[in-house]
Amino acid sequence: MTTTSSGPQAVSAYAAFDPTTPLRPHTIERRTPTLHDVNIDILYSGVCHSDIHQARSEWGPSLYPIVPGHEIVGRVTSVGAQVSKFKVGDLVGVGCMVDSCLHCAACTQGLEQYCEEGPTYTYNSRERTTGAPTYGGYSTAIVVREEFVVKVHESLDLKAVAPLLCAGITMYSPLRHWRIGQGHKVAIVGLGGLGHMGIKLAKAMGAEVSLFTTSAEKGQDAYRLGADNVIVSRDSEAMKASRNTFDYIISTVPTRHDLNPYLQTLKLNGELVIVGALDPVDIHGGLLISNRRSVAGSNIGGIAETQEMLDFCAEHNIVADIELINMQDINTAYERMLKSDVKYRFVIDMASLK
Amino acid sequence: MTTTSSGPQAVSAYAAFDPTTPLRPHTIERRTPTLHDVNIDILYSGVCHSDIHQARSEWGPSLYPIVPGHEIVGRVTSVGAQVSKFKVGDLVGVGCMVDSCLHCAACTQGLEQYCEEGPTYTYNSRERTTGAPTYGGYSTAIVVREEFVVKVHESLDLKAVAPLLCAGITMYSPLRHWRIGQGHKVAIVGLGGLGHMGIKLAKAMGAEVSLFTTSAEKGQDAYRLGADNVIVSRDSEAMKASRNTFDYIISTVPTRHDLNPYLQTLKLNGELVIVGALDPVDIHGGLLISNRRSVAGSNIGGIAETQEMLDFCAEHNIVADIELINMQDINTAYERMLKSDVKYRFVIDMASLK
Repeated sequence: MTTTSSGPQAVSAYAAFDPTTPLRPHTIERRTPTLHDVNIDILYSGVCHSDIHQARSEWGPSLYPIVPGHEIVGRVTSVGAQVSKFKVGDLVGVGCMVDSCLHCAACTQGLEQYCEEGPTYTYNSRERTTGAPTYGGYSTAIVVREEFVVKVHESLDLKAVAPLLCAGITMYSPLRHWRIGQGHKVAIVGLGGLGHMGIKLAKAMGAEVSLFTTSAEKGQDAYRLGADNVIVSRDSEAMKASRNTFDYIISTVPTRHDLNPYLQTLKLNGELVIVGALDPVDIHGGLLISNRRSVAGSNIGGIAETQEMLDFCAEHNIVADIELINMQDINTAYERMLKSDVKYRFVIDMASLK
Repeated sequence: MTTTSSGPQAVSAYAAFDPTTPLRPHTIERRTPTLHDVNIDILYSGVCHSDIHQARSEWGPSLYPIVPGHEIVGRVTSVGAQVSKFKVGDLVGVGCMVDSCLHCAACTQGLEQYCEEGPTYTYNSRERTTGAPTYGGYSTAIVVREEFVVKVHESLDLKAVAPLLCAGITMYSPLRHWRIGQGHKVAIVGLGGLGHMGIKLAKAMGAEVSLFTTSAEKGQDAYRLGADNVIVSRDSEAMKASRNTFDYIISTVPTRHDLNPYLQTLKLNGELVIVGALDPVDIHGGLLISNRRSVAGSNIGGIAETQEMLDFCAEHNIVADIELINMQDINTAYERMLKSDVKYRFVIDMASLK
């Protein structure tokens, strides 16, 4: 069945109106669906640390009012006449992007996240044709062109699927790009929303997985998540014993940090990938040269790869560890996230806003 | 013919005796050749910037007296009974290493430069069995185990071959490891001993080659060496026009420097390799993440790869651009090198010491 909604819809949402005031209820307008659009009733929306950064203009001035949320799971309520991949009732996901140029060298390789013109992000961005601001998943419905919608498997716990759309793909993409699998020793730096997905995914790919953490207590939880080893990075003896050990490290630390202690634990040709830090990183050139090590960066993942990740997670029964909240709890959730008081992702039950 | 010299030899050399006094004549003792050793009459010895660093204890305290020199071309005067690859009269080369463990994972892959026990360097190092200090090429003869000796083609200008043993292989190894060739856009940062070899080698491998330099004047010489483009790194418009251009950059800058302007010129999946800087390098994480860029390090090259490089240079008629000096001119040469006043490598005519 193919139906097209007529005219824009008024949709309930939560928005930040400036960098310092708590988020509060707001009504936004979703665009009139085009022939290529999918109209989605949002069931769950994950809460990513970048939501806080952007709600508070910490990555440069945001477009206010801003409706965050880019870990969206929902059900299709209508589709445009030319939509071929989805039908009403399908369970779908939307991640960090809702559009890109689709014709540059990156987009044509399925790497829309590296679109040469820059992708259109799910919120705090502007629609390519109209220039209207984009609004994210802290809302009851969203309209997205079908190329940026992915299928979600009914078999998984849906609320715990939401964080796969950002935290999951951000870890999956570099693990796949650098072909991590059996026989590799992988370490994840930091156990938060990204880190806990990194352990689960790298383990499911067949790697031996270690966690670097500043806290021995967090380490215990890492074993439950599937880690084979935990290294407390403040323990200089443990760090020394780990030298020249790992093929591959992903650092999820979102702030400026010293990568050199981790670089020393990479073996010959080892690679350290940062997925969190936009800030400067300090690297000692000698540590790169002495073992032909590399430091790379990776940004979320492409749409086809996001679908592949969701399929992989369905096959391996992988979801995030989450705490479900109501939309009205979002400001408290932000405060708790800033104290790392969440295991490991808040997800908003969007029924609370309906 | 196989001959073995009997007993240690007294050999004329130039040595530094402390970090501040000029180098002066000295007599060293070369070890009694073993069954596996090659005894070499040194014809030419290149002068590398690291010779100055180590003569002056700038990389930590050196072993005095120190006889620098690790770009050695000479002729075999005798070989041990079990030497199979070389005979008296052969033209040979010795680079930065004269020994390694030969059994670790790196050595067995032909990556002796990354030997897990650390290679034995040609000078300012200690012999693995006796602990005696090693002395380099600023001398009339050297005794080296055959595994660390390479064949030099008679067809090339021998004095200009010497710098291939360090500067040449340091550029060749990363270009080969990252499979640079036709269709790649490569940039070299800095036009000195390493940089001028990088232009010649990358060009011969089929890449389109650009030079980043601070000096427009140097740029003119780069065209003569084979560069297709020159970008003056102080010209902000030129740097802006080069964004997202290169597949691969090698930075030869030997001191702490800001890599971020060069990182911006790397395209998607681009790689920047440092071969010179042991110091910290400053990298903006966002520049890595936004285009999945990498920063890596590379250290000289293995012995088999050094032979491959010499064969490649013979095939493509590649040698260094050099200025021949007498051994007695070494202290003046050092002063000129510190002012970048050499095109592009000093080579000592060892006849001047005989």
